[in-house]
Amino acid sequence: MTETLNQELPCYYMVPKERVDEILAEYNPDEIVIATLTSHSSLQIFHGARKMGFKTMGITVNHDTRYFDAFPLAKPDEFVKMKDFDEIFDRSGEFADKNVVLIPHGSFVEYMGAKRFQELDIPVYGNRAVLQWESDRDMERQWITSAGVPMPRIINDARDIDQPVLVKYHGAKGGRGFFVAKDYAEFKMGIDHTQPYTIQEYVLGTRYYLHFFYSPLSSEGYKVRDGSLELMSIDRRDESNIDEMYKLGSQEDMKRQGLFPSFVVTGNVPVVIRESLLPKVFNMAENVVKRSYELFGGIWGPFCLESIVTDKLEIKVFEISSRIVAGTNPFISGSPYADMIYPGMSTGARIAMEIKNAAETDRLGEILT
Amino acid sequence: MTETLNQELPCYYMVPKERVDEILAEYNPDEIVIATLTSHSSLQIFHGARKMGFKTMGITVNHDTRYFDAFPLAKPDEFVKMKDFDEIFDRSGEFADKNVVLIPHGSFVEYMGAKRFQELDIPVYGNRAVLQWESDRDMERQWITSAGVPMPRIINDARDIDQPVLVKYHGAKGGRGFFVAKDYAEFKMGIDHTQPYTIQEYVLGTRYYLHFFYSPLSSEGYKVRDGSLELMSIDRRDESNIDEMYKLGSQEDMKRQGLFPSFVVTGNVPVVIRESLLPKVFNMAENVVKRSYELFGGIWGPFCLESIVTDKLEIKVFEISSRIVAGTNPFISGSPYADMIYPGMSTGARIAMEIKNAAETDRLGEILT
Amino acid sequence: MTETLNQELPCYYMVPKERVDEILAEYNPDEIVIATLTSHSSLQIFHGARKMGFKTMGITVNHDTRYFDAFPLAKPDEFVKMKDFDEIFDRSGEFADKNVVLIPHGSFVEYMGAKRFQELDIPVYGNRAVLQWESDRDMERQWITSAGVPMPRIINDARDIDQPVLVKYHGAKGGRGFFVAKDYAEFKMGIDHTQPYTIQEYVLGTRYYLHFFYSPLSSEGYKVRDGSLELMSIDRRDESNIDEMYKLGSQEDMKRQGLFPSFVVTGNVPVVIRESLLPKVFNMAENVVKRSYELFGGIWGPFCLESIVTDKLEIKVFEISSRIVAGTNPFISGSPYADMIYPGMSTGARIAMEIKNAAETDRLGEILT
Repeated sequence: MTETLNQELPCYYMVPKERVDEILAEYNPDEIVIATLTSHSSLQIFHGARKMGFKTMGITVNHDTRYFDAFPLAKPDEFVKMKDFDEIFDRSGEFADKNVVLIPHGSFVEYMGAKRFQELDIPVYGNRAVLQWESDRDMERQWITSAGVPMPRIINDARDIDQPVLVKYHGAKGGRGFFVAKDYAEFKMGIDHTQPYTIQEYVLGTRYYLHFFYSPLSSEGYKVRDGSLELMSIDRRDESNIDEMYKLGSQEDMKRQGLFPSFVVTGNVPVVIRESLLPKVFNMAENVVKRSYELFGGIWGPFCLESIVTDKLEIKVFEISSRIVAGTNPFISGSPYADMIYPGMSTGARIAMEIKNAAETDRLGEILT
Repeated sequence: MTETLNQELPCYYMVPKERVDEILAEYNPDEIVIATLTSHSSLQIFHGARKMGFKTMGITVNHDTRYFDAFPLAKPDEFVKMKDFDEIFDRSGEFADKNVVLIPHGSFVEYMGAKRFQELDIPVYGNRAVLQWESDRDMERQWITSAGVPMPRIINDARDIDQPVLVKYHGAKGGRGFFVAKDYAEFKMGIDHTQPYTIQEYVLGTRYYLHFFYSPLSSEGYKVRDGSLELMSIDRRDESNIDEMYKLGSQEDMKRQGLFPSFVVTGNVPVVIRESLLPKVFNMAENVVKRSYELFGGIWGPFCLESIVTDKLEIKVFEISSRIVAGTNPFISGSPYADMIYPGMSTGARIAMEIKNAAETDRLGEILT
Repeated sequence: MTETLNQELPCYYMVPKERVDEILAEYNPDEIVIATLTSHSSLQIFHGARKMGFKTMGITVNHDTRYFDAFPLAKPDEFVKMKDFDEIFDRSGEFADKNVVLIPHGSFVEYMGAKRFQELDIPVYGNRAVLQWESDRDMERQWITSAGVPMPRIINDARDIDQPVLVKYHGAKGGRGFFVAKDYAEFKMGIDHTQPYTIQEYVLGTRYYLHFFYSPLSSEGYKVRDGSLELMSIDRRDESNIDEMYKLGSQEDMKRQGLFPSFVVTGNVPVVIRESLLPKVFNMAENVVKRSYELFGGIWGPFCLESIVTDKLEIKVFEISSRIVAGTNPFISGSPYADMIYPGMSTGARIAMEIKNAAETDRLGEILT
């Protein structure tokens, strides 16, 4: 595995795997501390880690962490307060002394910056090489589509708009920087030409955020390569203000009043998908995992395919998140899917279980980068 | 019970109850195998059956069953692959040798065809006589309304349309073959006169898919006839593309672009209903059960009243499903309702519990047809 | 605590705390009976009380209670049938003899009337002084905003309407008596000048009904004053017909047909909120609790902040309910939040646990009024 990583990763700025392995060589596998940034899905990560018997550490950068007092089963054993994200670099020795393993999540990577996150000389769960494939929309698309998984079509020339489209400004985050145009006229009205943007087909359908977990350590279950693929849960995001805007009247009328739809994630609702779609769902996830090994050494641990199901029961993936997503937060005590694998287990606990298994079998080097 | 069935059933093509009883006479009640088609709610059915200690069998007809590998607690002990649905007939002897009890679900009945499903000489859980009452919209309406349960009003002459209506083509399945018309003009625009259709009142309100279970074997709880009525859970269906179409703008604008709403079920969301509606909800279900015994020997096991609650807190039932619905799939480990009866129990497990109780008390003949 | 209550409460018509304490002095703390009106969230209250080992009593006034037969783990040990709500006054001695503690919920207070509920000489869980602050919209607003918690802006003169507004007639209950106007013209079209009303800003965003519990008896967790603040769960209400009206087409078209949106609560859906909003969420709840002690002796037990999250991630509270809300009903067996405090615990069970703790430590007088 280590060899594979070294051969395939274009890791020009990522901390070298050898360096991570050197650090790990000094770790006491019985004393691993699970650490993450106190936001996003950290309650779940700490809760799961505690369940699996780990000590936990909450990293804070101007975060208000008092809310952890309210959740005693999820409160980390220790908070480490930083003045900024650079301080993590200065304190990596301290983290190593404490046998810290970092769990990445969307906010951790976003606030730190993908590049800086890759440079951290602290062992991280998952393959950090994925970050450069995710942070660039073209590379992300190349990965997903070359895996044979359909994505919404890209429209290169706005004059070709002949159906509703989603216009995404580059660097759009957390649901800001999008707009929907029903036709070319609306596109022209809405577009800000000073920013780079991408136009893609607006796929009509219902959204399912599919939370997978790929374990290279497990040889049972749904076998992919030498590991196994699991579906832990499914959610749908709540977005403000789009998800309740219809209550006010038509968007057309709203726009006349200067009110425009926005897509800022504010929460999550649990859902299940039609069972007959599961073969397709697993097939997509399998191909994405396999292709990731070909391209950059693989993804493992939790990942999410953010998908739309059309009324023809086609599934299109509009985004991938190669780590735990906040959409797993409704499932602190299991889900309709997890309960058919590990009753009562959250994705956070699944991560901890994986690290525990690796620590007990001396395979930490295979899942930490 | 058996006598009642024979007297009341107009079972002109259904396998005779005597034949089923003959087959059952050879069964070893300690070795019952729970079997169903690998789709729809089969994960839940197998998961529940295993929980209750049964062996399980997945019947496949060109199904991709690999996803079962991902759910070890739900994977059937055995798959039986068929080249088509007719093969089940040829192999009924083999099924009998294995003490197989078939669990019907929506896809099993739909793909096989109600008529063929009734002809199967393999013991089936539930009353197969219900199929002819369900597959004909007029008979279904007669059953429900003669039970005193309100349904959306039928409009016989399109020229009488004076409110929003739902137009259903006969044989519409899985959410296809419907359209909504707000008035007569829209009806005329949308209608395809080459197909038979029904026009019914479009009831404005919120939908609740009420998952009941009627046990003729239990004498406790909410007593109906000699058995008991249970509410196991409630869901709301997700339909593509109607459930997210509003995000794009008004339907009027969409239609101008050739985009029309559709109602294809893609998943399910858990819900609960206002507690003060429960007396009415139970009363409706009770009347439907009682009427079913008068008309065709009864329904037992899981059934679903698909209902709309108006802003006057009236409930109208727009459809009945007389078997397990996929809307129970969010509730693999219980529901807010099931947990007040049998903590942690799914409808799939409830079915298995019923068969287990019947097998242990030599009453299988009362619940299998 | 008792002293504080006596000093601060403007309890001109409420049963005096001394009288409640006199009644409590005769109670056998080992034989407390948990009682409530059989509606709203009573299944959950009884279910939770039974879990904690209490006897339970269902109070009925022309209620159909047969549905409790269907939920054996929630069925009260006893029903007490009344011909009207006044009869409770006549029978308070009987209730005292049985060591009854009343649990208030929205329907109990609404049907009895806040004033009458305050006069009841039966020990009630929670501070009844809150009722006068809640039943008057101006006082409610004064409490919440003086706690530093933002609410939707009030528009005093309809001619100042320059954005969508919500018009609430006084005494509007259960989602009736509201309407939305997008501008002044719509306001003029819709308004009934014969009724008093309030105009407030319509806040665009997604709704989160935040279910808190404040325990003055607990000294652990998220400490507020001498007690602790807990977040038990979050739901979103289903409202008929607004939540499915969009399926029919635009509201503008609907209105032309005489179909108007309405906001009658028919059920509840479980949700979780973005983790990064929790510090703000707890801060709001803390300030509301603290302010309640300054104004009227405090709120304790369950309360709900009904909030909207905008696309700027601002949170506005549009209403407070100072007792258990029906939105906790999806969480009979725990929630993603409760499971990080007390695994598997409902708000109903939390109430019972609080009363049990108080009974065991001789502190019932601090939580009953």
